[in-house]
Amino acid sequence: MMKAIVYSGPGEKALVDVPKPHIEQPTDALIRITRSTICGTDLHILKGDVPEVKPGTVLGHEGVGIVEECGPSVTGVRPGDHVILTCINSCLHCDFCRRGMYSHCTVGGWELGHRINGTQAEYVRVPLADGSLLKIPEGMDEDALVLLSDIFPTGLECGVLNGQVQPGCTVAVIGAGPVGLAALITAQLFTPARLIALDLDPSRLEKARELGATDIINTRDGPARTCEAVKALTGGLGADTVIEAVGIPATFELAQVDSPPSDNWPRFIPLPCSPPMSQDLVAPGGHIANIGVHGKPVSLHLEHLWSHNIAIATRLVDTCSAPMLLRLVKAGKLNPACLITHRFELAQAMEAYDCFINASQTHALKVIIRSPGPR
Amino acid sequence: MMKAIVYSGPGEKALVDVPKPHIEQPTDALIRITRSTICGTDLHILKGDVPEVKPGTVLGHEGVGIVEECGPSVTGVRPGDHVILTCINSCLHCDFCRRGMYSHCTVGGWELGHRINGTQAEYVRVPLADGSLLKIPEGMDEDALVLLSDIFPTGLECGVLNGQVQPGCTVAVIGAGPVGLAALITAQLFTPARLIALDLDPSRLEKARELGATDIINTRDGPARTCEAVKALTGGLGADTVIEAVGIPATFELAQVDSPPSDNWPRFIPLPCSPPMSQDLVAPGGHIANIGVHGKPVSLHLEHLWSHNIAIATRLVDTCSAPMLLRLVKAGKLNPACLITHRFELAQAMEAYDCFINASQTHALKVIIRSPGPR
Amino acid sequence: MMKAIVYSGPGEKALVDVPKPHIEQPTDALIRITRSTICGTDLHILKGDVPEVKPGTVLGHEGVGIVEECGPSVTGVRPGDHVILTCINSCLHCDFCRRGMYSHCTVGGWELGHRINGTQAEYVRVPLADGSLLKIPEGMDEDALVLLSDIFPTGLECGVLNGQVQPGCTVAVIGAGPVGLAALITAQLFTPARLIALDLDPSRLEKARELGATDIINTRDGPARTCEAVKALTGGLGADTVIEAVGIPATFELAQVDSPPSDNWPRFIPLPCSPPMSQDLVAPGGHIANIGVHGKPVSLHLEHLWSHNIAIATRLVDTCSAPMLLRLVKAGKLNPACLITHRFELAQAMEAYDCFINASQTHALKVIIRSPGPR
Amino acid sequence: MMKAIVYSGPGEKALVDVPKPHIEQPTDALIRITRSTICGTDLHILKGDVPEVKPGTVLGHEGVGIVEECGPSVTGVRPGDHVILTCINSCLHCDFCRRGMYSHCTVGGWELGHRINGTQAEYVRVPLADGSLLKIPEGMDEDALVLLSDIFPTGLECGVLNGQVQPGCTVAVIGAGPVGLAALITAQLFTPARLIALDLDPSRLEKARELGATDIINTRDGPARTCEAVKALTGGLGADTVIEAVGIPATFELAQVDSPPSDNWPRFIPLPCSPPMSQDLVAPGGHIANIGVHGKPVSLHLEHLWSHNIAIATRLVDTCSAPMLLRLVKAGKLNPACLITHRFELAQAMEAYDCFINASQTHALKVIIRSPGPR
Repeated sequence: MMKAIVYSGPGEKALVDVPKPHIEQPTDALIRITRSTICGTDLHILKGDVPEVKPGTVLGHEGVGIVEECGPSVTGVRPGDHVILTCINSCLHCDFCRRGMYSHCTVGGWELGHRINGTQAEYVRVPLADGSLLKIPEGMDEDALVLLSDIFPTGLECGVLNGQVQPGCTVAVIGAGPVGLAALITAQLFTPARLIALDLDPSRLEKARELGATDIINTRDGPARTCEAVKALTGGLGADTVIEAVGIPATFELAQVDSPPSDNWPRFIPLPCSPPMSQDLVAPGGHIANIGVHGKPVSLHLEHLWSHNIAIATRLVDTCSAPMLLRLVKAGKLNPACLITHRFELAQAMEAYDCFINASQTHALKVIIRSPGPR
Repeated sequence: MMKAIVYSGPGEKALVDVPKPHIEQPTDALIRITRSTICGTDLHILKGDVPEVKPGTVLGHEGVGIVEECGPSVTGVRPGDHVILTCINSCLHCDFCRRGMYSHCTVGGWELGHRINGTQAEYVRVPLADGSLLKIPEGMDEDALVLLSDIFPTGLECGVLNGQVQPGCTVAVIGAGPVGLAALITAQLFTPARLIALDLDPSRLEKARELGATDIINTRDGPARTCEAVKALTGGLGADTVIEAVGIPATFELAQVDSPPSDNWPRFIPLPCSPPMSQDLVAPGGHIANIGVHGKPVSLHLEHLWSHNIAIATRLVDTCSAPMLLRLVKAGKLNPACLITHRFELAQAMEAYDCFINASQTHALKVIIRSPGPR
Repeated sequence: MMKAIVYSGPGEKALVDVPKPHIEQPTDALIRITRSTICGTDLHILKGDVPEVKPGTVLGHEGVGIVEECGPSVTGVRPGDHVILTCINSCLHCDFCRRGMYSHCTVGGWELGHRINGTQAEYVRVPLADGSLLKIPEGMDEDALVLLSDIFPTGLECGVLNGQVQPGCTVAVIGAGPVGLAALITAQLFTPARLIALDLDPSRLEKARELGATDIINTRDGPARTCEAVKALTGGLGADTVIEAVGIPATFELAQVDSPPSDNWPRFIPLPCSPPMSQDLVAPGGHIANIGVHGKPVSLHLEHLWSHNIAIATRLVDTCSAPMLLRLVKAGKLNPACLITHRFELAQAMEAYDCFINASQTHALKVIIRSPGPR
Repeated sequence: MMKAIVYSGPGEKALVDVPKPHIEQPTDALIRITRSTICGTDLHILKGDVPEVKPGTVLGHEGVGIVEECGPSVTGVRPGDHVILTCINSCLHCDFCRRGMYSHCTVGGWELGHRINGTQAEYVRVPLADGSLLKIPEGMDEDALVLLSDIFPTGLECGVLNGQVQPGCTVAVIGAGPVGLAALITAQLFTPARLIALDLDPSRLEKARELGATDIINTRDGPARTCEAVKALTGGLGADTVIEAVGIPATFELAQVDSPPSDNWPRFIPLPCSPPMSQDLVAPGGHIANIGVHGKPVSLHLEHLWSHNIAIATRLVDTCSAPMLLRLVKAGKLNPACLITHRFELAQAMEAYDCFINASQTHALKVIIRSPGPR
């Protein structure tokens, strides 16, 4: 038996004893988890928003640990290896995996803490181990590496790469929660000239500034004022890349371009549009990259956008960037630990959840849960 | 004085005598028009949908002609040169032009038949001539070249390039009108394996097949059946590229991916969605390229799309591909004339409009209007 | 025991009886070969140019066949499946494979007929089967599919993709042997405006024209005349893409740009260069894609090229394009069979080699070797 | 009359009085130079290596200044504007300019201090002013901006962009002179994990480390030892990008890959090669970007490279990146002034040349020459 955080239906979670997992398939590995963390998606699961997570499932899709045992087909890791568990499991063979779209692996994808038991436990069975584990070189800060399971690849792949951030461009990140901040940090790998953080929470905006935002905008005054502020910072054009990291219609709609701010620029076909001018952040020729997990349709203002040469991109993280991010961390060029605000032992897991749920009071960004035993 | 087709307010157009234009700016050229054509956008203007077109404006933004006179700063053409007029005027100097986004030129863009007098006339003044005229090599079919002013660059740039059509991929084109067919033809420059045309009109679908569609689908049975048909042709996945060439919410919404067709594939987060499952054409990892001129917002089903690695792209044609298209026509690799269904003299311009407006009866695609005089 | 064509040292090959192979690794598959073919590389091996091919090795790295047996880790194919064997074996797991560089797989790469027994036999053991076999849909011409093992992916990946062929561009292919013709055919997937074939053999040039070359140039008059001829076809600029498909210094050097043809164009830094002006085919801003297997260093004329914005690319075929090529063949958009000139039974294998070796007399391009038994 | 540094034949230069230039073409601007600098190319000219520079020519192709007068066709700048002069003059209209290849402008290219009088003077006539001047926002350090005329765009365009530097990759820069250091600095815009500087001069290597090199290697021990050192830093693979910033055969040849360091990796076709194994820096799948101005052919080891998936790129700087670099300087993300080691007045121009020529003693990198008058 082992300790694990188990979902038992909407609103219900507990740290309980469950059977220790074992190798089931030849491509499985059994991992002793040394650290895990809580994701915003775990909170969605707890609300009952992700109905395919069945009661009785161990939560968690992020973690680092030590390989305990490997199935006979596993070639990439050996017992004793310290590994990062990517939140996406990949067979590496199917057509999607060969294109790097591991998220759409026909036999994998998001498995842990979703369709099978997850990482908030002492042990976890990892299917498709060769496509789901990343060996950790000796001597690294393994707390920090938990953030390569999901949040840093998500910020980079869904936000920065999908948003085609380039040196000298202007980037606006809507939402300065953990994943928005991961996008803000990884955007700096490409050296934008201006990096604007938008949020309602002054303390998160302050954190964004500390982590590299050149400008911060509090959106509390509504979309019209927000747009004015972004326009003022961007010569009236809007941002080259807008990263949506919230996941509600209001923020996605904010990302869209609107009619021109003046009579003489940019002179394409104007169409009547209803006030207030609220979807106004992206420049002509720019990119909207969606990170947010959306639950409803949004309005796409094609009556403006059709002629503005805009690209919109969505993505479920593929974690294909995790090896590169690990190289950057090792080289001292990236410091994921800057998002860690709290650390708990597995025995304190309920406190860890409370801390993360009450982020507006605790200012929690990422909370690390450490499992007992040598690390 | 000269003959010209003049817009005189919603529903009002006439072939009348107006003053012959003259050089106003040093970068202007005066062109004697030998051929023009009518665009769907001209019909929008006639309905009053484009209010910045003032009564008294000569219609038309497509044409070929002969240079009559050049302003002192013009260096690219000389009197006597036969030229294509691109529908977009470009200064080539501003930041947008340097990026190839001529449509957003800060002093140009869509001018002819919009903010200034257009091409459905004996003469037209072309501003920014060096960035707006394309010399025609001797001996070419100039009727065909009228289609390089707008419709072929639009099909290619907004549809095919924005949709990232690649060899071996699957393309669905929604709408088999002139611009949809131009996309369907130029998609073949990249040799997709499957090229599906969708429309309500059997005769347009037949034309699409003749022009290279490998499959045709009549959408009259509604979105659910249409989706089933596309899925049946694409191994259940949908098309890699969906090109929207209509411009109404229903067709754009049709382009979007929907929840998985079966329980075991592709296994990302399912969310409840309202029947009918109607927005189902694009494959995970695919592209939606918008060509349509939209007048209203559309619903974007981010509750599905957020996790499907989809790219959506809009664009006002930049006509930056026109020189390349001209090379292909000259080399015999592209035949724009296949879309020309009717030819009229300028004196018959009202008949030309009637023919084009009643396309469902006349089967008109592109109608050429020839001006008097040597061609 | 089985029949196989065995290399026994420089100049020595024979059709002999050898032991039938069997599964050795869990990732192996055993294939009954129904068709194979001979590659120019096999002739290099016979000359002793590839010393790591040990005497006793079965020749051949191309083929189609039927799966006889699978190791326990193989998931992608089942006994009875008809398959294409790609000439490159890929583990799909290592860093190179994840980048699509299967040729550099750390445990695979070019194995068959090289480091292990090959395909010119009744049976072959295929290592890393999931990354090395491609299922054939029912009802296809399997003779034609042998050409997807190597030559068509090579022409496309090393020539066309590395040469960044685009619609409307000009392409020159040096060498109209089988692989040069495969490049010439696959270049047409991207619709170049002009496609120039260069060779010394009039019958190969005639074949090139038949297969889509818009122009043919016999290089017998030497590099200076050849360059003049290419310049004459390209407005004095040279070709946007030059594909080298021979593999000797003279042809690679021919591909390079030279000093400007006239005093007033293109006006970059001229430097004295020795006559004859022989390396003159690529346009400023153009691409040289190397397909040829080179045995010696070549002279790179950086004293000219440094300022001409030239890209040079090399590649050992990765066969990552084989699935896409198979889709195109299935869709009727590509016909590899056009390069098949002769067909032999395995029992006639020595005649097949004679035919291929004496290509200048027999006009052989690709010769198919069929194995006995149901196909 | 005005003061200017005039080339009077090989080895001959002097600060003399020459006639002040004036507007000759409608697209000209007359600039009062406030700062210029000396380029390595100026030294080549002085040696007589660039014969098309005629005696009597004013030297210099870099500078900032103030617009004094504009020809009637100039629209982008006005008298009184502070401007950067790009070393490349662009018409923006020709086919090369529309592709961003300003270096190959059919009526421009490298003009200043080459085919016409240059910038080491009190005044200069700038042809094609709209495509050759960049307005400076108020309040910037204009000494630093002189480095945007040539050296920073060269390092970025020819080295970093041509070398496809990406986050997490490994970059080796051969040559730590001014342009090599500009490449080393701008490579960091893309956050490589490892950035290796190679040179013979310990003080330049020390400067490289100060400016961001993660590793420095002195090449005095010969190519074999140098290769070993790079291999040791890169897991035996070599660098993903090698930037050649010297311009002699030995350094370019050093950049190339060689045969594998061990028997079991990477297992492609080995061919006999002559010792010493000296061209060994680039990893399979990597890029060699040439910045150096070469005067002779180099040996390209295609007998190895043909199968190593290598891209080699050359480029004459286009200065198309200068506006982006200016944005980065303005945003405080790039500090070109770090390469300025000395400042002189125009009256001391001969001392400035002496200082720059004797860089091994003076440690000069870039020397600024300031002209009299308000700046």
